[in-house]
Amino acid sequence: MDVRKISGPSVARLTKPLVDAVLADAETYRVGLSKQGGATIVDAGINHPGSLRTGLKIAEICLGGLGTVSALPAQGGKGARARLSVSTFNPVIACLGSQYAGWNLQAGDFFALGSGPARAQAGLEELYADLGYSDSFEHAAIVLETDQIPPVEIVKIVAEACKVKPENLTIILTPTRSLAGNSQVVARVLEVSLHKAHTLHFPLHKIIDGIAEAPLPPPAPDFIAAMGRTNDAILFGGSVQLWVDSTDDEAQELAVKMPSDTSRDYGKPFADIFTHYGDFFKIDPLLFSPAQITVNNVSTGHSFSAGRINADLLDRSFGDA
Amino acid sequence: MDVRKISGPSVARLTKPLVDAVLADAETYRVGLSKQGGATIVDAGINHPGSLRTGLKIAEICLGGLGTVSALPAQGGKGARARLSVSTFNPVIACLGSQYAGWNLQAGDFFALGSGPARAQAGLEELYADLGYSDSFEHAAIVLETDQIPPVEIVKIVAEACKVKPENLTIILTPTRSLAGNSQVVARVLEVSLHKAHTLHFPLHKIIDGIAEAPLPPPAPDFIAAMGRTNDAILFGGSVQLWVDSTDDEAQELAVKMPSDTSRDYGKPFADIFTHYGDFFKIDPLLFSPAQITVNNVSTGHSFSAGRINADLLDRSFGDA
Amino acid sequence: MDVRKISGPSVARLTKPLVDAVLADAETYRVGLSKQGGATIVDAGINHPGSLRTGLKIAEICLGGLGTVSALPAQGGKGARARLSVSTFNPVIACLGSQYAGWNLQAGDFFALGSGPARAQAGLEELYADLGYSDSFEHAAIVLETDQIPPVEIVKIVAEACKVKPENLTIILTPTRSLAGNSQVVARVLEVSLHKAHTLHFPLHKIIDGIAEAPLPPPAPDFIAAMGRTNDAILFGGSVQLWVDSTDDEAQELAVKMPSDTSRDYGKPFADIFTHYGDFFKIDPLLFSPAQITVNNVSTGHSFSAGRINADLLDRSFGDA
Repeated sequence: MDVRKISGPSVARLTKPLVDAVLADAETYRVGLSKQGGATIVDAGINHPGSLRTGLKIAEICLGGLGTVSALPAQGGKGARARLSVSTFNPVIACLGSQYAGWNLQAGDFFALGSGPARAQAGLEELYADLGYSDSFEHAAIVLETDQIPPVEIVKIVAEACKVKPENLTIILTPTRSLAGNSQVVARVLEVSLHKAHTLHFPLHKIIDGIAEAPLPPPAPDFIAAMGRTNDAILFGGSVQLWVDSTDDEAQELAVKMPSDTSRDYGKPFADIFTHYGDFFKIDPLLFSPAQITVNNVSTGHSFSAGRINADLLDRSFGDA
Repeated sequence: MDVRKISGPSVARLTKPLVDAVLADAETYRVGLSKQGGATIVDAGINHPGSLRTGLKIAEICLGGLGTVSALPAQGGKGARARLSVSTFNPVIACLGSQYAGWNLQAGDFFALGSGPARAQAGLEELYADLGYSDSFEHAAIVLETDQIPPVEIVKIVAEACKVKPENLTIILTPTRSLAGNSQVVARVLEVSLHKAHTLHFPLHKIIDGIAEAPLPPPAPDFIAAMGRTNDAILFGGSVQLWVDSTDDEAQELAVKMPSDTSRDYGKPFADIFTHYGDFFKIDPLLFSPAQITVNNVSTGHSFSAGRINADLLDRSFGDA
Repeated sequence: MDVRKISGPSVARLTKPLVDAVLADAETYRVGLSKQGGATIVDAGINHPGSLRTGLKIAEICLGGLGTVSALPAQGGKGARARLSVSTFNPVIACLGSQYAGWNLQAGDFFALGSGPARAQAGLEELYADLGYSDSFEHAAIVLETDQIPPVEIVKIVAEACKVKPENLTIILTPTRSLAGNSQVVARVLEVSLHKAHTLHFPLHKIIDGIAEAPLPPPAPDFIAAMGRTNDAILFGGSVQLWVDSTDDEAQELAVKMPSDTSRDYGKPFADIFTHYGDFFKIDPLLFSPAQITVNNVSTGHSFSAGRINADLLDRSFGDA
């Protein structure tokens, strides 16, 4: 694979003002603050309600301060849905270097996937060798999609890996069923396309920019239903545009192979697929993709589109919403 | 009614930076500044033109610094219309605790309905007992939909009720016919749905979040025509999504009873209804509602929709726009 | 022509924080910084990639700090396109007083059209006599649509005309083929309508406000193709709404004469027209217009629409995008 070092600013540094804003006004963000092993825990949906806007801010924290996530209300009428849009200054670093939930954190019974800028400070994942990006800063922030307070061991693991004092670590908790959890997952629609591009061996340094959007699903109280809906929002409703600097053959292949409907597991709501396999890692990794993509090749001016929005499967997944 | 204290941050404190931005750059906002009884008067449409963006900022002041109001241009084509979208960190406090125009202010011939964060400092309205929310801060801001400078008695009434010095009071004036007035009224589309929910005895603490949008009508020079159009934008074009934590029966009843077309007075442009009755208080209070609603119940994952956008009545109200 | 002085804030002063943000975080904006004759040169697409968001920020610099430019991703499906929207506090000053590319800068072989707030400090163009607006500030910023570093003579010409030290001058370079260049040109959709209104002798002080949007074309590596697409985005896809305070006859005439399809040169992609004439100044000046317009007359409440989006010509110009 053609791998080049991708340079970029410190995502931890760019994220700090966003984290500080949440910590300084927990009442506005409707989150709870507590301490665990010296670190600050932000409860954004366990015992505190959070909100959609809290979810957008947490999504921007996940993007390492390099991105903007906006909500657009449904424009009237049955079947119309509110949508999230995502754009960044630098999609490879924002989405793969920071937002991707790639850090397996385990201690005793506790397990969660870590997301956000702290990953780049730890640099433990293979992905960072491919990116050639690393970060160093005295403050760290990580987002966990969980409904449990992480044990003190997790604080130690993260702080040590990031080389920060526990006092300078903020851990943000967003259960999938919460409004913040729901929206910060759907805000991964652009990241999902970059991760798929990486899986398809498209050279990441050839991706110049990107912009994406997906519908906001109704939250569900059940974990599998909630996770299913956020995945379906991307798989059946997510739309991505990438600007690349490559040959037209590469750009076309990226477009053709990108959409979720190229996967052998495409065709049912995600909760059904998950229940069928009973194991996340048995699901075709190529399923995790947006519904539709357009690739603009800036080196030739040509464009390539593939995939389609699947309204029927969105309706089945989201129920009457 | 099931009433619980709804806690939240000080809307007066969150609003102060927004008011300061307008006062510091009146030339950009195209507003006039003057003094009355020690208070600062902001003319946003009487002898100064204001602008759409000034209206959006005033709408965010009305929302107590807890909300975002954005304008989206019409996407081409005859009949397409620019739209305003509204979202908040906390719709009950932002919309009912601050934005609702519920304070009757009268002195001599002057009459206006007060809107914005000062209402929560005064706490004179019955609604505050139901909300269980109150505010205290050394600065206060109030928005009046009027084309007259309020007399010094109004300054005294507001400053005393809010327990602030007149020098720390800002009064913003937005005539209905002005661009700022037009847009800050349409930005009430989410508030209208919360007020209706309250009228329908839906427990406010069960409303978790909301997002809404409505078309921006063409301003009209005549007061009744201008007021008619801003109401019609909501009644026939307003679309609201609420996230609630309730039983499905409650959520469904809220959806079914919410839309404007459930009112006995539905069916004509608002200016005609107003002219017919000749008295605002003879109009069915249940008319004041969005055209369309979706309620997502986060405790079950079920959703309920009702109502519809009425393009014909929007066309009749807005003329050729 | 009915000309009145249009007052407004200093666009150079309002722009400075935006320029400072880019200079302070060049790595985030993915631009290169260098010095030329004492001035700061920002490379936003020659040897540095820039990004779409960098283009939006540069567009807001062009608008003199008085405007907001947002990108909206395509909402799924083949043929759907990402769009840019533009709104300002004061369209006449933001668009004509600052954004319009009206300053002919030449030195030796170097030629470029200057855009942005520095124009108002120089005040060399006839347009400023018509506007009655001028600016004075110790810092200046100008945007050049070029892929060459301007020679030191250009720095001297601009600094002297603006009465600033070269050290206080920032020159931002955005090649048409770059993402930043592509987007900052399309963000001129509102400006194009104001310039056309001026060409049609509509009194500028009667334009109260405006809002506009246009599709974002795929960048092309060839200059003529790239320039063609950015023009076509406006000519065939641009949609403008203006609020005016005039007679209905004036408002109607403005609407009827505004759209691009009133020009004798309408009907082919712009690159074809440019190639046909071989000279920019032989093209009908009335061609430079949005596809569609709605004029709301605030003094009567009446509205006038004309023109239409031309999807076929957009498809021909943009290729498969």
